Amino acid sequence: MRPTGRLHLGHLVGALNNWARLQDEYECFFMVADWHALMSEYANPSIIKENAFDNIIDWIACGISPDKATIFIQSDVKEHLDLFMILSALTPLGWLERCPTYKEQIKELKNKDISTYAFLGYPVLQAADILAYKAEYVPIGEDQLPHLELTREIARRFNSLYKEDILIDPQPLLTAFPRLLGLDLRKMSKSYDNCIYLSDSRDILHKKVMSMITDPKRIKRTDPGHPEKCNVHSYYAVFKPELVEEIKEKCKFAQIGCTECKAKLSEILTEHLRPIQEKRNKLISDKKQISDIIDKGKIKAEEVTSGTLKEVKRVMGI
Amino acid sequence: MRPTGRLHLGHLVGALNNWARLQDEYECFFMVADWHALMSEYANPSIIKENAFDNIIDWIACGISPDKATIFIQSDVKEHLDLFMILSALTPLGWLERCPTYKEQIKELKNKDISTYAFLGYPVLQAADILAYKAEYVPIGEDQLPHLELTREIARRFNSLYKEDILIDPQPLLTAFPRLLGLDLRKMSKSYDNCIYLSDSRDILHKKVMSMITDPKRIKRTDPGHPEKCNVHSYYAVFKPELVEEIKEKCKFAQIGCTECKAKLSEILTEHLRPIQEKRNKLISDKKQISDIIDKGKIKAEEVTSGTLKEVKRVMGI
Repeated sequence: MRPTGRLHLGHLVGALNNWARLQDEYECFFMVADWHALMSEYANPSIIKENAFDNIIDWIACGISPDKATIFIQSDVKEHLDLFMILSALTPLGWLERCPTYKEQIKELKNKDISTYAFLGYPVLQAADILAYKAEYVPIGEDQLPHLELTREIARRFNSLYKEDILIDPQPLLTAFPRLLGLDLRKMSKSYDNCIYLSDSRDILHKKVMSMITDPKRIKRTDPGHPEKCNVHSYYAVFKPELVEEIKEKCKFAQIGCTECKAKLSEILTEHLRPIQEKRNKLISDKKQISDIIDKGKIKAEEVTSGTLKEVKRVMGI
Repeated sequence: MRPTGRLHLGHLVGALNNWARLQDEYECFFMVADWHALMSEYANPSIIKENAFDNIIDWIACGISPDKATIFIQSDVKEHLDLFMILSALTPLGWLERCPTYKEQIKELKNKDISTYAFLGYPVLQAADILAYKAEYVPIGEDQLPHLELTREIARRFNSLYKEDILIDPQPLLTAFPRLLGLDLRKMSKSYDNCIYLSDSRDILHKKVMSMITDPKRIKRTDPGHPEKCNVHSYYAVFKPELVEEIKEKCKFAQIGCTECKAKLSEILTEHLRPIQEKRNKLISDKKQISDIIDKGKIKAEEVTSGTLKEVKRVMGI
């Protein structure tokens, strides 16, 4: 995860809940991708360091356990750049220029100038991140599939050039996530200023929820609602599924108003975030503990990646 | 210097003699650019390691002193890739695509597929190599001026983005070198198989010199020669200047034949290389000494570059 901002409900539902499940099933490595963050944030890079620390606190508060999984910072582990350099040397430029996500992102991030050398190599560094761990699976969204395909191509090119199957073809671990839109119905994103952050106080959270757009066709309190088209309703589905049917019926028959419905959601979210925020506050006051977790993660990550790099260099004869 | 082959007379005359002079005037860092070598040699990278060691032996045999200068291997010093990554993030792609040497080299190295991601970034890594040492001067040939100009642009972009003059604008240290052509009148280069290597034995050297092309207009022994157009004569100018006038006169008046002239040059070169080869042979038998020099160089290079990286990260706030 790129440490470019505070974490919000989208991260919780789209990644962290899944990670917390995965750590019980697999040996997991969760990485703060600070080099990747630098590619888009080079004009204002000081946010990276703050967010790296803050994000790790949120991860742990959301149930990622440093006893079960390895939590580390990309730039702490020099093997990432070593392998990046090696893979860069054998990755044809055309593979990157033709990468479908590349042109999309150049278009999308219009407010940032990312026509840089580093940004073109984004997927090569991702490939190094994955292949250095000989990862068998990578939990990704569908939009990241082209990047993983590129990682697989790069691994195959390496193995074929040096005639030994050192790098492992990683598989995607696709999970269907409930999609949470932002307050304004666009994708939840810091740059749209439409997020509910994991660290939002009860008051801020209440104000945000009360500002959410509901069913635009329901104008008066007495109009019947269309919960299946209502963003607020989709939050119920994620955070209070046991109430979904009841709310749906009441909305349809105008037995509950949007204001009441949102106030209720605000309470539900406050309750949901309470244990996370309590844990978060405890962790914030114990910086030493977080530093120790990061140090431990670095050591473990180095152990694994230096093993891969040794093999990589052996087959290359370098 | 990229460790892509054994060193030849072109290296001695075009670089090493100059380096040996510079080390008395400046604090010098002489680098084995093994990451740069990987960019062209990734298909057969095992030659890099052998040549790195062998080239350092030649450097020292030619008078580079580990007591005066720092001799190190690029990939030993992790700060090079750290700074490379940082500079990559802020270098516009267009600067690299428009670099005049880039397209030339793509054309020139037809037998190698260098349309890779790494090769496009060649000048960015060079910039990191230079700027990490806050180098004031870089000894280069005229053909490398565009690369140094790019280094200067990257340094200025960094300083302007982070509002502090941390990276120093390096200046070129241009020296006019006598140009030595290869045996076949093309540029002396491993890939043309037209080199006289520093390690060539007396017999091999003799055979090579006797095969050199002289004045093509002098067909018979009795024809007058044109020494100013003769490759063999230009070797005299470099390795035995005190004989140049005499040979020139004799050649012009057909008082000396090409065979005799080449046999004499062969003796001159053998004498010239004798002390170098003696030192070389001693060093080859003492691998420990070379390893120690490389280790010492790594420590010194790390000391300097980690200082620069600290400043770089401070102004960026990362």
